[in-house]
Amino acid sequence: MQRLKAHYRVRCAARDIEAFAQSIALEQSVEVPMEVVRDAFVRERIVGTVEFIKNISEGEYALTLALSAETMRAGTNGVDVAQTFNMLFGNTSMHATVELVDVEFPEGFAQSFGGPRFGLDGLRELTGAQGRPLTCAALKPQGLPVAKLAEICLTFARNGIDVIKDDHGLADQHYSPFDERVRACQRAIEQAARETGRRALYAPSLVGPASKLFKQAKLLREEGIGAALLAPSLIGLPLFHELVTEHLNVPVLAHPSFSGAARIAQPLLMGRFFRMLGADAVIYPHYAGRFAYPEALCADIARECLAPWTGIKAAVPVPAGGMTVERVPELIDFYGRDAMLLMGGSLLRADDLAERTRQFVDSVAAAPKSGPARYATGTR
Amino acid sequence: MQRLKAHYRVRCAARDIEAFAQSIALEQSVEVPMEVVRDAFVRERIVGTVEFIKNISEGEYALTLALSAETMRAGTNGVDVAQTFNMLFGNTSMHATVELVDVEFPEGFAQSFGGPRFGLDGLRELTGAQGRPLTCAALKPQGLPVAKLAEICLTFARNGIDVIKDDHGLADQHYSPFDERVRACQRAIEQAARETGRRALYAPSLVGPASKLFKQAKLLREEGIGAALLAPSLIGLPLFHELVTEHLNVPVLAHPSFSGAARIAQPLLMGRFFRMLGADAVIYPHYAGRFAYPEALCADIARECLAPWTGIKAAVPVPAGGMTVERVPELIDFYGRDAMLLMGGSLLRADDLAERTRQFVDSVAAAPKSGPARYATGTR
Repeated sequence: MQRLKAHYRVRCAARDIEAFAQSIALEQSVEVPMEVVRDAFVRERIVGTVEFIKNISEGEYALTLALSAETMRAGTNGVDVAQTFNMLFGNTSMHATVELVDVEFPEGFAQSFGGPRFGLDGLRELTGAQGRPLTCAALKPQGLPVAKLAEICLTFARNGIDVIKDDHGLADQHYSPFDERVRACQRAIEQAARETGRRALYAPSLVGPASKLFKQAKLLREEGIGAALLAPSLIGLPLFHELVTEHLNVPVLAHPSFSGAARIAQPLLMGRFFRMLGADAVIYPHYAGRFAYPEALCADIARECLAPWTGIKAAVPVPAGGMTVERVPELIDFYGRDAMLLMGGSLLRADDLAERTRQFVDSVAAAPKSGPARYATGTR
Repeated sequence: MQRLKAHYRVRCAARDIEAFAQSIALEQSVEVPMEVVRDAFVRERIVGTVEFIKNISEGEYALTLALSAETMRAGTNGVDVAQTFNMLFGNTSMHATVELVDVEFPEGFAQSFGGPRFGLDGLRELTGAQGRPLTCAALKPQGLPVAKLAEICLTFARNGIDVIKDDHGLADQHYSPFDERVRACQRAIEQAARETGRRALYAPSLVGPASKLFKQAKLLREEGIGAALLAPSLIGLPLFHELVTEHLNVPVLAHPSFSGAARIAQPLLMGRFFRMLGADAVIYPHYAGRFAYPEALCADIARECLAPWTGIKAAVPVPAGGMTVERVPELIDFYGRDAMLLMGGSLLRADDLAERTRQFVDSVAAAPKSGPARYATGTR
């Protein structure tokens, strides 16, 4: 069976590392306690395993997991990009003490994504830049009108720059609309090519929702644009890959924008932003479960979901991540009535699933009907 | 003019905070030094400004920026999701010392995204869960066949669970294909509804590239599925919003998978993963520029771009982020010939852009033609 080897750096006390490593292996595969895994196929082919633990410094460990490639495939053949990252670092990314540092892919796995279509050699060939670094310059600042950006583009192209890219802040704003800007800058590229006999590659910045990005890629193909600039972490790694393989036939420059997004405060990201963008309910780890989320952080996420917000409905906080039926009274005490309680392994580990489910439902139904909302709800 | 107030927590020495705050304001708007901003419209309407700095503890500051809402719009009306996050925290997310902690939106800005369509009240109405928390249970572990998952679903629904969600690890694997699973679980929901008179909401997990997610959403509409589970950080915040507003007509549960993705080591994320997914060239901050990237980290990113990799072309490392023409010899010494050198403000601040561009191009052309590649290239 094909397995990926995923290498993590883990901060942890010596006495806890074995158990923590096991819990990460389950988290990144079946997401239930091992005792719930009763099916032989799941146990042998799906469950992640701990391959290696090494103490690298005081309180710091190198951990290697073997993860089943089968969990990352769609159907029996293709590898799914989103599911690959979901299984490599989905839930474990929420542990502040764990970093994904390396991955070894089984034979043919990475190749199924395709990698660069042009890459270093292709870009050298397209630009004629041999035996030296390629050169690149950026069209900015944003706010300039199209004519001014095209003028800068012309100067860069005339004077020998290989690749001329939009600033990543140039999207489709009224002061330099995408279609108009792309056409004008490409005209500048062509003018310089006629003058100098050498054609620079222009890389417009594509920013927006998927349907818009597909349209912008179409314009690039129609206008014979030489390259494209995309920010994979901003638009999402799966959509980045889809654009490259299905919609663009030119070299792609990856921009690092938003690649450090985990440093957005969790209540702001999960509570406010997910809600603002349309989440009706927001799932997150509750205090003293599988993730070390402080109580105050959980309260803050709930507050962000529920706080009054003019014209924006309240979203439902969904505390989760290893909750048990026994903790229902405590959860109701903490959240009041305005929450959705999510049970996973706690139900599935029971011998009688129906009975355990009824206990869960009954204990929630027993919440005082007139009980107060713990956090303010409504619009603000 | 409409401005967003973005609040950051910044670790910084007292003597540097004023300058650092200014640099973040420029980074999140025009991305050039202030002296390059010669256009009155750009200066008055586009440049971000420092509103507030407060020392909150030893070496830690609260910083508030005012950012122009105009930079986040597409055309003259709509707000673009991707561009909003690009401007709020795009490049600044690469500073390990800066966290985005709060945002105040101008009137109508957040509302233009729409927020939850159902939210707390809508979910209460759909499930009949009044005056108590809602209940939710998860179908897992992955690896189980569809019939077994549907059986668990039936048990949950019969026994009164309000919302039954797929484990977020359930995608479209051969052992429980999406279409088959969704239809079977919904049949279980309907069977339980006939028996009990109460219909639970089933929330399948949607994972994949955009085109697949659109198809999966269509299946949900056709089959009358009651809810959906999406991981915004995994599929990208802009695509999440697009699915909610354009493709789904049921309540959406947001899953936190991959929301801590910044803890992927930068060489692995930017070098290996971006390359694997098809980036021909990878832009990242070079040592001693605007971002505090250590030299060794930059070398590691270049290595990941260029390392031999069977069946995967080399991608071009593109060191950037405040490089100057004066540093070209040093950059060539560091990277050898296999790189693309990217200049931004360093060219644009010159009085004679054409002359400065020629200096850049000439200094790169002067690189020793037979000079060695500094890092191994090719496939591995």
